[in-house]
Amino acid sequence: MTSPHFASGSFHFPIRVYYEDTDAAGVVYYANYLKFVERARTEALRALGFHQQALMEGDGLGFVVSEAHIQYKSGARLDDMLMVETQLQKLGKVRMTMRQTIRREAQVLCTLSVEIAMVSRTGKPTAIPDAMRAALLEAMPPTGDTL
Amino acid sequence: MTSPHFASGSFHFPIRVYYEDTDAAGVVYYANYLKFVERARTEALRALGFHQQALMEGDGLGFVVSEAHIQYKSGARLDDMLMVETQLQKLGKVRMTMRQTIRREAQVLCTLSVEIAMVSRTGKPTAIPDAMRAALLEAMPPTGDTL
Amino acid sequence: MTSPHFASGSFHFPIRVYYEDTDAAGVVYYANYLKFVERARTEALRALGFHQQALMEGDGLGFVVSEAHIQYKSGARLDDMLMVETQLQKLGKVRMTMRQTIRREAQVLCTLSVEIAMVSRTGKPTAIPDAMRAALLEAMPPTGDTL
Amino acid sequence: MTSPHFASGSFHFPIRVYYEDTDAAGVVYYANYLKFVERARTEALRALGFHQQALMEGDGLGFVVSEAHIQYKSGARLDDMLMVETQLQKLGKVRMTMRQTIRREAQVLCTLSVEIAMVSRTGKPTAIPDAMRAALLEAMPPTGDTL
Repeated sequence: MTSPHFASGSFHFPIRVYYEDTDAAGVVYYANYLKFVERARTEALRALGFHQQALMEGDGLGFVVSEAHIQYKSGARLDDMLMVETQLQKLGKVRMTMRQTIRREAQVLCTLSVEIAMVSRTGKPTAIPDAMRAALLEAMPPTGDTL
Repeated sequence: MTSPHFASGSFHFPIRVYYEDTDAAGVVYYANYLKFVERARTEALRALGFHQQALMEGDGLGFVVSEAHIQYKSGARLDDMLMVETQLQKLGKVRMTMRQTIRREAQVLCTLSVEIAMVSRTGKPTAIPDAMRAALLEAMPPTGDTL
Repeated sequence: MTSPHFASGSFHFPIRVYYEDTDAAGVVYYANYLKFVERARTEALRALGFHQQALMEGDGLGFVVSEAHIQYKSGARLDDMLMVETQLQKLGKVRMTMRQTIRREAQVLCTLSVEIAMVSRTGKPTAIPDAMRAALLEAMPPTGDTL
Repeated sequence: MTSPHFASGSFHFPIRVYYEDTDAAGVVYYANYLKFVERARTEALRALGFHQQALMEGDGLGFVVSEAHIQYKSGARLDDMLMVETQLQKLGKVRMTMRQTIRREAQVLCTLSVEIAMVSRTGKPTAIPDAMRAALLEAMPPTGDTL
């Protein structure tokens, strides 16, 4: 199992498939890929020094997903070891768009484009803090690609 | 589909099994029965006039599960229409124990004994309000049975 | 609570929000809306006489989601009673696209465009059976709209 | 983050808490601890060389949970790093009982006793294979303790 790491401007995060993730069709249930990519986004931010619980408690800041576009190519199966690759596509003042690709070895199972927005405790759109912006730009320079 | 109802001191709540509930073994994933019985407990309280969100916002009161004992007999499958029967076993000052049985027609799939405790916003054990106690005693007189 | 029904070419399906659906931000977790809309699609087909488990066992046919596009407007909360409206946008030989809107009373919380494809037991794209096509066209004439 | 490992006859498996695991009460949803402990049991077996998907495909063997007893002491929170300790309590011909404890640092959040049974593809109770029995006895000698 490869450890989580940044490489070539992407964050790579491994995920194992358990029974909880699968459904009676024998593959990962279609909603659960959104869990996998959220774990990867969370760990990318954590690797850059940003912890969601601390952000909320300290600064009253959190992320919400405003849009997600998912293309399902092939189903992941029980016991599969998946790799989630996360790239920053766009980084705006309040919003950013991530492109996330889930692979089993070389095979692409699922590609996503996910837009997230920073919000205050009351849900008001808020500027992404400068320190986070700088860390993102350094570790994950935006590709500008679209799904 | 039978509607939710009280009968003979039990609350009967129907639940349909969807893909989200199942796993690659073709049956409902073992953790998900805890979701089913929580829906049934919530609807039993709602039928008696108690709404969890309102209880929390108004009186700062909520329930936590302190113990659960589950016996799995047979697996529910996709598209099954299940019936959850909920009985009150014991009603204490702070805690109550519910016996919950999940059936597909006459067949028992799963039996549970679930202890829940009333807590304040800060998680402190708190007396169940008198109005809720009275409503429970009338609709669901405790059986005293144990699993 | 309104019962599930067809009206003006759409299927309307009510869903209650339970603790299982929410997350620590106090709203429904973003992946779980995909569960809600899948329940609605399943019940729309069931209302037309098509049961997924029977289709798989009898004819070896099932649906897979090939693409989903979700726009999140506002978060559903614990105890909310939601209504999922499902419209057929496009009906192809193998694939169909559904537009699904989740509302709390008049407020739109989430809109989705979901493409599903009929597949054989081995995952091969397969024509949607004529009887299902005819039933869909009658109950849910395609709008041709796109998200 | 400590890596998964055996120590003193127990298997230790770290789990990070994500939004998907929590609910509107701000803690891990009570059913989700059953997911955590199943991941830990799966990884304990994998560390001993037994893969569930391969067991099912090769030998037509799988595990089902026949009973679970959970005591909830305190709730895990978003971003918590938990450690699941798994001990073998009893190892029978067909069934085994695991004691599983979920901790956040020194604090016990949840203790479980979970009975699992080996079954054939058709769900018939079946003897645990000798090689698995031997590996379990060596790595995790049964404690005989009960919850």
